[in-house]
Amino acid sequence: MINTLIKNIQEKNAPIVVGLDPMMNYIPEHIKKAAFEEYGETLKGAAEAIWVYNKGIIDATYDLIPAVKPQIAMYEQFGIEGLIAFHRTCAYAKEKGLVVIGDIKRGDIGSTSAAYAVGHLGRVEVGSKRYVGFDEDFVTVNPYLGTDGVKPFVDICKEENKGIFVLVKTSNPSSGEFQDKLVDGRPLYELVAEKVVEWGNECMGDTYSNVGCVVGATYPEMGKVLRKLMPKTYILVPGYGAQGGKAEDLVHYFNDDGLGAIVNSSRGIIAAYKQEKYASFGEENYAEASRQAVVDMIEDINGALGK
Amino acid sequence: MINTLIKNIQEKNAPIVVGLDPMMNYIPEHIKKAAFEEYGETLKGAAEAIWVYNKGIIDATYDLIPAVKPQIAMYEQFGIEGLIAFHRTCAYAKEKGLVVIGDIKRGDIGSTSAAYAVGHLGRVEVGSKRYVGFDEDFVTVNPYLGTDGVKPFVDICKEENKGIFVLVKTSNPSSGEFQDKLVDGRPLYELVAEKVVEWGNECMGDTYSNVGCVVGATYPEMGKVLRKLMPKTYILVPGYGAQGGKAEDLVHYFNDDGLGAIVNSSRGIIAAYKQEKYASFGEENYAEASRQAVVDMIEDINGALGK
Repeated sequence: MINTLIKNIQEKNAPIVVGLDPMMNYIPEHIKKAAFEEYGETLKGAAEAIWVYNKGIIDATYDLIPAVKPQIAMYEQFGIEGLIAFHRTCAYAKEKGLVVIGDIKRGDIGSTSAAYAVGHLGRVEVGSKRYVGFDEDFVTVNPYLGTDGVKPFVDICKEENKGIFVLVKTSNPSSGEFQDKLVDGRPLYELVAEKVVEWGNECMGDTYSNVGCVVGATYPEMGKVLRKLMPKTYILVPGYGAQGGKAEDLVHYFNDDGLGAIVNSSRGIIAAYKQEKYASFGEENYAEASRQAVVDMIEDINGALGK
Repeated sequence: MINTLIKNIQEKNAPIVVGLDPMMNYIPEHIKKAAFEEYGETLKGAAEAIWVYNKGIIDATYDLIPAVKPQIAMYEQFGIEGLIAFHRTCAYAKEKGLVVIGDIKRGDIGSTSAAYAVGHLGRVEVGSKRYVGFDEDFVTVNPYLGTDGVKPFVDICKEENKGIFVLVKTSNPSSGEFQDKLVDGRPLYELVAEKVVEWGNECMGDTYSNVGCVVGATYPEMGKVLRKLMPKTYILVPGYGAQGGKAEDLVHYFNDDGLGAIVNSSRGIIAAYKQEKYASFGEENYAEASRQAVVDMIEDINGALGK
C-alpha cells in the first residue's frame, strides 16, 4: 500500500494529506439546516451533515491530493450514526482514487490488536464468508503495549497489502511527558523509532516500508533526527498549520529523494472558509475555499522543498 | 462513578469483572445457527450471535457480579453491525444494574480525546440537543500522549460522574518493551502511575478516585509497588486465569480495606463451557457454565484475600 501512496503523491506532486476531522461548528449552516430538516436535530442528522460536508470537500479536492485522513474520534462521538458517516466517507474517498488513512490510534494486547487490525485493514470471518469492516488503507497505531500489540497489524498489512503509521512523537504540547523521557541517555521516542524500523523490515514496499510512523510538525529538531534513524520509514506529519508547524520546519522530514513524508492539515483545509484569507469564498462555497487552501499548502510545502 | 462501582463490589462481595470479549469460536453452535438462519452468514448475523451470547451470560451472572468489561475491538472487527452489538450489550448490562467498563484504550491529542470522551462517557451536542453515543460508565485510556491526551477524559468524568482506567502496566508479554524502561533509575510505568495520581486528585469519589489504572495480573511484583504508589487509585487487573495470573498473586493489588482492585476474567468466564472443568454443563448450557466459573472465581479471589 505504501507503493500506491507514493505513486499518488508523485502523480499529484503533493506530499500532503487532508485530515477529515469534522467538527459541527466547521460545517456550514446550509448543510446543517438541510440535514436537520430531513432527520431532525438527531445523531442521524449530525451524521448526514458530516457526510455531506465531507463529500463536498472530497469532490472539490480529490484531483489535487493523494490521500485523506479521517480522524475516527470525530465520528465516534456521534455513536453508531457517526461511525456510519466515517465508513461512508472512507468508501467514497477510495472510490475517488484516494488512499485512506484511518486515524484510529488503536493498540492493545495481541489477540485484541488482531481484532482491530482485522476490522480496519483486513477481513473478518463469519461462518464460511469473509467481510471487510471499515476497510481503510492505512491506520495509525499506538505502540505503548510493545511488539505484541503492533505485530498483529503488521501481519494483516502483509496479508492484505495495507499499511500502518505508528505513533513515535506526537504533535501535542504534552507529548514529551513520557515520549521524551531519557532511557540510557536517549529519548523514549527513539527507542520506539528503532522498533518501527524492525517491524517495518518485515513488510517492505519497493523503496519504503508499509510500516510508517507519526512525528509531529511541531518538533522539527526531533523530526530531523528521526528521519535519519528511520531512512525507509514514511513519516506522517500532523501539526502543520493550525497547530503551528511551518513548511520550512518540515524540510528535514523528507529524504533526498523528495519522498519519505506526508504532511497532514485538517482544520486549515476543511474549515478554510473561516479564515480571513479565504473568507471571500463565503460559507456556501466552503469546498472551493478548501480547494484553494490545498493549492496553497502544496505550493508552500513544495516551495520549501525547492520543487 | 467509582462510588457506585465500590458499592456494587461490596454488595456482591465480588471484586471481579466479567470481560465480554466474544470471539466467534466461543459462541455455541446453536446460537450461531439461529442467527445465521435469520440473517445469513453476514456481519449482521455475526452481531446477532454475539448479542444473544452476551445476553445469556449477563442474564446468568448479573446477580453475582458488580460490572462487565466489553472489549470494543471484538465488536469493532465486525464493523458497524458489531458496534451496534457493543452498544446493545452496554445498554443491557446497565439495565441489569451492572457498571459498564468500556475497554476501548483510546487516547489522542486534546481536542480528539475530548471527542472520544464525549462519545463514550458524555453527551454530544447536535444543534440545540444533546445525545449520548455509547454511554459506558468507565473507559480505559492510553497515556502515551501525556496529560493533554488524558485530561479531556478527566473533565468529562467530573461533569458526568464517570470514570476512567489509565493503562499503567499492561498484562501482555511485551508490555515491558517501553513501559519498563528505566528513566532516572525508575521504570516508565511508575512515572505514568504518578501522573495517574495527579489526574485522579482532581476527580475524587468518597474514598477512591474516579481515575483508576490498569495493572496486569501477570506482573505481581510490580503490582505490589504500584499499589503503594497509588493508594487511592482503583486498579483494574486483567490477566487473571487464561493469561496466567493467579489469585494469590493478586493479594497485593488490594489495600488493607479489602478494596482498591477489580480483577477481570474474559475467556475463563465467557467460554467456561469449553474447559474440561465445566464441560459437563454442555454447550447448550454455556451460560450456566459461566455462572459456575464466576462463583469459582469469586471464591478463589476472596479465599486468597482471606474473606
